[in-house]
Amino acid sequence: MMPFVTPPEPDLQLARRLFDELDRATRDGRGITRASYGAGEQFAHDLVARTARGVGLAVSTDVAGNLYATLPGRKKGAKTFLIASHLDSVPQGGNFDGAAGVLAGMAILSAWKRAGFAPDFDTTVMAIRAEESTWFPYSYIGSKGALGQLPADALEVRRADTGRTLAQHIDELGFDSKAVRNRTAQWKPADVKGYVELHIEQGPVLEGSSIPVALVTGIRGSFRYREARVLGEYGHSGAVPQAYRHDAVVAAAEFVVRLDERWSELEAAGKDLTLTVGKFFTDAEQHAFSKIAGEVNLCIDVRSHERDTLALVREFTDSLAEEIGSKYGVRFELGVLTGSEPASMDAGLIAAFDRAANALGIAHTAMPSGAGHDAAVFAGAGIPTLMVFVRNQNGSHNPNEAMRMEDFDAAVRLIGYAVANLT
Amino acid sequence: MMPFVTPPEPDLQLARRLFDELDRATRDGRGITRASYGAGEQFAHDLVARTARGVGLAVSTDVAGNLYATLPGRKKGAKTFLIASHLDSVPQGGNFDGAAGVLAGMAILSAWKRAGFAPDFDTTVMAIRAEESTWFPYSYIGSKGALGQLPADALEVRRADTGRTLAQHIDELGFDSKAVRNRTAQWKPADVKGYVELHIEQGPVLEGSSIPVALVTGIRGSFRYREARVLGEYGHSGAVPQAYRHDAVVAAAEFVVRLDERWSELEAAGKDLTLTVGKFFTDAEQHAFSKIAGEVNLCIDVRSHERDTLALVREFTDSLAEEIGSKYGVRFELGVLTGSEPASMDAGLIAAFDRAANALGIAHTAMPSGAGHDAAVFAGAGIPTLMVFVRNQNGSHNPNEAMRMEDFDAAVRLIGYAVANLT
Repeated sequence: MMPFVTPPEPDLQLARRLFDELDRATRDGRGITRASYGAGEQFAHDLVARTARGVGLAVSTDVAGNLYATLPGRKKGAKTFLIASHLDSVPQGGNFDGAAGVLAGMAILSAWKRAGFAPDFDTTVMAIRAEESTWFPYSYIGSKGALGQLPADALEVRRADTGRTLAQHIDELGFDSKAVRNRTAQWKPADVKGYVELHIEQGPVLEGSSIPVALVTGIRGSFRYREARVLGEYGHSGAVPQAYRHDAVVAAAEFVVRLDERWSELEAAGKDLTLTVGKFFTDAEQHAFSKIAGEVNLCIDVRSHERDTLALVREFTDSLAEEIGSKYGVRFELGVLTGSEPASMDAGLIAAFDRAANALGIAHTAMPSGAGHDAAVFAGAGIPTLMVFVRNQNGSHNPNEAMRMEDFDAAVRLIGYAVANLT
Repeated sequence: MMPFVTPPEPDLQLARRLFDELDRATRDGRGITRASYGAGEQFAHDLVARTARGVGLAVSTDVAGNLYATLPGRKKGAKTFLIASHLDSVPQGGNFDGAAGVLAGMAILSAWKRAGFAPDFDTTVMAIRAEESTWFPYSYIGSKGALGQLPADALEVRRADTGRTLAQHIDELGFDSKAVRNRTAQWKPADVKGYVELHIEQGPVLEGSSIPVALVTGIRGSFRYREARVLGEYGHSGAVPQAYRHDAVVAAAEFVVRLDERWSELEAAGKDLTLTVGKFFTDAEQHAFSKIAGEVNLCIDVRSHERDTLALVREFTDSLAEEIGSKYGVRFELGVLTGSEPASMDAGLIAAFDRAANALGIAHTAMPSGAGHDAAVFAGAGIPTLMVFVRNQNGSHNPNEAMRMEDFDAAVRLIGYAVANLT
């Protein structure tokens, strides 16, 4: 075993100042709003670029508007290691989802630059555009753009609030939608040594187990029926006996309960899974307290890092819809199926970060990521990829995100130490 | 047994003409719209009054605007028998719900008048105001007004579309809201010999059993939680394990399934019941396909003509909310409890109409009414009351109501025959 290199301590005070500046500038009532390719995201990019230039890092952007702050390595022509995350937020979100991963990289590289420390390879903080798909109905715009993977039709999707296309927004900020359309890649996978993304955990597991940091083992893939419908028959609530009913609410409710029971069974059998019906609604224009419901709209989101489990649950969902449809004489229209592939995190990086955490005495665990992240795009391109989760209270995508700074500090020190020791 | 009187055949052609005139004048796009105390209802009242005067019936109104067309009986000072129903409709409803019962009375009394036939007692067609509570959020305005039973606060409720109070609407049509407020009664129960209301069946039972007519045995009472809520906790759909969830959709779905199962059990045990969750919706401003739902709104409508069954199901509902609330760590807020008492139909009238149907060879059955009707108000006042249901396709409260005229004819002949033979 190689003796450990001890890199300079990250500049955690710098990270705090940047968190505060972001909060002041992009707070929008109760929450934080940094629209993809909008004013709040641009403020964050400008702040990071200015700070990086201030400490002497090399600053550049790519055709899609992603930002890079690079500390050159001691060896010419070596690969680049990316410390990355996104700077946009959902509307009325929190200050940490996304930004924490970029500020972590800034805390590390600014301290290294000032101390004259550098690994053999280039180390680059990457601030990614447009990760939150609430603005443009398309996932991972920035990271796909950086890898030359964004399909042409994605450039035509429109931002929910402005109605203007992604191409228009890219060009308005001075970037180059034509080059994006031509799949101009900033990175060839072979040139990237690795990718690490610090992110707040979006669930309650770390908080529940009193551990500040987790190494992510994989990012769950998914299948989704985002606009499923159950079509029954409206009728008078007092005048139609049970045997004559085709009640969409009862049928849809049994569907939800049976799916949830199946989840419990699979979990007991050791499968990795989440299963969520986040929307379930009768038609506001037609429903009434004195009317049997003839229609329910619902969505189904199933995630797992196991391809087999996704396939198994999809088959169960489809056959359950058939079964309950016949039982109640209603029609299930599950609608368009979408989804994403599970992504594996790199075993070598997991091992390296695990050694580093042990060396630093940072309590840590391993867990899958239920949410999708840009890291899945890099992993999918064959780049060795890892995510580091930081304990977080109150979930994400809301104003109450509440990562403790000492937990963030531990994760940043871990990343700096582990990257410095990569061979 | 008394020999049967054979009254003149009802003027069914008159009823058809009146149905057609109502349809032409009050069709509103696809459906029929006759607002309570609005233009469509008033057209119907004017049409019935004009027709009644044309055949020589005595026409009058009461302080609440209910209309009466009376054929005096052969004996002075005898009680009055009412053949009644309402002339308003829901918005975009059908032509039969309500109007059919009034036109039935007009077909009978106009034929009797022209033929010089009359029973000993007065016979009166009553056209009732404002039965459909979609316009004013209050039930049975016209019939309660006629019996001096309308509480003062009911006069202050506002019509959903105009925003004006019931008192204003009553006065605008030339009636007397002050007298209604003072509980001026058109009828003392002791002066009413009986009340019969022909109505389309609002469920599918007669259509399913190939019988054109039913004698109603009772009108179901109800209890309702019109605005219940289930409060859980929002969370990321991919990041929160099952054990950490407080999913309002899963909890509410299990609640619905368990209530529906309980209904099946009670039905198997011979109880009379309907149980309906007509609305079930997550919050459109907060729900998302990638978010565990933190809130569900739903309503519960339970009906039975058995007081015991209503009490039993209400207790079950309340304790089930407790049970499922603890199971999922969510809170059920069932909200305000409303309801109505079951009403019994008069055994003497049922027997008389049963004899009449047998004498006429009209196939008939007996069934409870799941929907509420003005008849429940008269029955509740101690007046001998009966409803006659006519087979109907496609339910009520929609443009597709489709009563067959030959079924209507049979029911009208039955009512004429039975009333003529009352002693």
